[in-house]
Amino acid sequence: MTEPLALGSTIGILGGGQLGRMLSVAASRLGFRTHIFEPGAAPPAGHVADAVTTADYEDNAALKAFASACDIVTFEFENVPTSALDLIEAHVPIRPGREALRISQDRLTEKDFLRDLGLNVAPYADIPDRAALDAALAEIGTPSILKTRRFGYDGKGQARLRGPEDAAEAIEGMNGAPCVLEGFVDFSHEVSVIAARGTSGEVACFDPGENVHRDGILHTTTVPARLSAAQRTDAVLMAGKILNALDYVGVLGVELFVTTGGLIVNEIAPRVHNSGHWTQQGCSVDQFEQHIRAIAGWPLGDGSRHTDVVMENLIGHDMDRVPELARQKDVSLHLYGKADVKPGRKMGHFNRVMR
Amino acid sequence: MTEPLALGSTIGILGGGQLGRMLSVAASRLGFRTHIFEPGAAPPAGHVADAVTTADYEDNAALKAFASACDIVTFEFENVPTSALDLIEAHVPIRPGREALRISQDRLTEKDFLRDLGLNVAPYADIPDRAALDAALAEIGTPSILKTRRFGYDGKGQARLRGPEDAAEAIEGMNGAPCVLEGFVDFSHEVSVIAARGTSGEVACFDPGENVHRDGILHTTTVPARLSAAQRTDAVLMAGKILNALDYVGVLGVELFVTTGGLIVNEIAPRVHNSGHWTQQGCSVDQFEQHIRAIAGWPLGDGSRHTDVVMENLIGHDMDRVPELARQKDVSLHLYGKADVKPGRKMGHFNRVMR
Repeated sequence: MTEPLALGSTIGILGGGQLGRMLSVAASRLGFRTHIFEPGAAPPAGHVADAVTTADYEDNAALKAFASACDIVTFEFENVPTSALDLIEAHVPIRPGREALRISQDRLTEKDFLRDLGLNVAPYADIPDRAALDAALAEIGTPSILKTRRFGYDGKGQARLRGPEDAAEAIEGMNGAPCVLEGFVDFSHEVSVIAARGTSGEVACFDPGENVHRDGILHTTTVPARLSAAQRTDAVLMAGKILNALDYVGVLGVELFVTTGGLIVNEIAPRVHNSGHWTQQGCSVDQFEQHIRAIAGWPLGDGSRHTDVVMENLIGHDMDRVPELARQKDVSLHLYGKADVKPGRKMGHFNRVMR
Repeated sequence: MTEPLALGSTIGILGGGQLGRMLSVAASRLGFRTHIFEPGAAPPAGHVADAVTTADYEDNAALKAFASACDIVTFEFENVPTSALDLIEAHVPIRPGREALRISQDRLTEKDFLRDLGLNVAPYADIPDRAALDAALAEIGTPSILKTRRFGYDGKGQARLRGPEDAAEAIEGMNGAPCVLEGFVDFSHEVSVIAARGTSGEVACFDPGENVHRDGILHTTTVPARLSAAQRTDAVLMAGKILNALDYVGVLGVELFVTTGGLIVNEIAPRVHNSGHWTQQGCSVDQFEQHIRAIAGWPLGDGSRHTDVVMENLIGHDMDRVPELARQKDVSLHLYGKADVKPGRKMGHFNRVMR
């Protein structure tokens, strides 16, 4: 498929959370419809979609009907089962492609991929069992982090090891899931690059943002990030290298540690990314429209930063701040319409512009 | 209702066109759901709404079910039948209120209202029949325009009179509908003010935009408009006067003719307005979010212009320009997802920013 997606076409989105919601709005701006596929009831993206399928990823009939109703399918999260992707792809193209998903679904595969590209990553080791953990700890040392190879996000499926004596508890907590051990990196701060690649191979990167986490969840992203001109160029070149290696189409997030020895890739996410929400107020074309443009075969839009922005997440009872934030003239609110406020749940975010 | 609308509430929107579509997106950003009521099939707003009712304004059961499902109801066009409004209002508040609708639904009532407020309007006369037209032509003269009192938009229901000899054909074309005759105003250009008023009575106006029409349909809006500082102040004061007189809640559009003798009110529209689309790229809070904020009882947002913008409508086969416009870095596209391209049909618009 090299022709642009026809106006009025339907874009399927796997996952109905806030990323799907904002992708859906961006798609509407360009004249497309969206169809959400989500196992959970009442998905936030469903409030702004043309159609919603509520079904499990094991429901082949629902997957087939969904795929047949769409002209192209994308996703808002990377842990879609392979069997579901196979079934969908028999009917309709999936963008970004399967290779990006295969790699990012598995931390070990991802780290091997990045290392083989010549990029710097933290020291790591494959941990199939306790014996491997002991051997890896002897080499990588502590502090270090044990992470499940699959299905981890927002600090879930992770255990911190302060010394070898933490090994037993850490590996027990993983319930037999295959893991990787990651050595600690002595970094000054974390930045991320939200990068896009079109069907023609053109690449466009948003300005890197500087991320601060709280309790394992992104708290703020600030643009511009504290980076030298050389670091900024490095970050963008690294993102471009990853996109090209994957023959990627769409938006991808790259998290980087800033160290005295250069930039180290923490992880990649083959989708729009929480650390790219600042683009909604900082750029003419935000990461959501950029993703839709890319997968629709449109030219990429202007992602240059016209305004400095601080994005802050509203987690759980941060929602109590909404009435006060609504009064602040430099604040743009983005709420996700989630019914229940729960601790640790991403309920919304806001962008504070610095004009 | 003086408490702000609770997060997650449902806003009903009467009318499912592009204005309802963009209102729906703005509502989602603030965490609200929307429910569209529209007689026509496959309304553009339905692509980004939580629920759609397809029914006529005479379908009382459908109206009642719709009203019961909503926490508040607003509208994207002013020609909603009174009986439908009565039925809805028995269940749920309508914002802006009925008075604004009553006045703007009838050109004669509207002109009387504006004149009684002390604002300047074009010379006009009530035309119930041919005799009244002859009498009015003797006083107002030609060129002048005969317009139906109700249901006119985008140049429909209008006839231009170059001389008294055009009277017969003009009034026959109206098929017995009550009319007004409007005298021509010698104006240099047209501007419009998009104004908002909150439940607390606070008023905020967007910067006036300068409008150019083609074939009776808005072609471009340019901000800033060509206005002196005094004219700019006048325009904003006039809009504020109208809002206060109507005890208005929401966004209202005021079209003004610029003449050597001052500003003359052409017409008002009790809703978001095509000439306010530039706010999507020119302001932190656009007219759609401002309307949702107002009717939801939120504080009004920051509508100050941070960027110069030219908005241009895409009418009918202007859609052929989309591929080229998509490549232009200073252009933000907004397409309405309408299935069929028809001459004179508003298919989308774009904002060109002047940074």
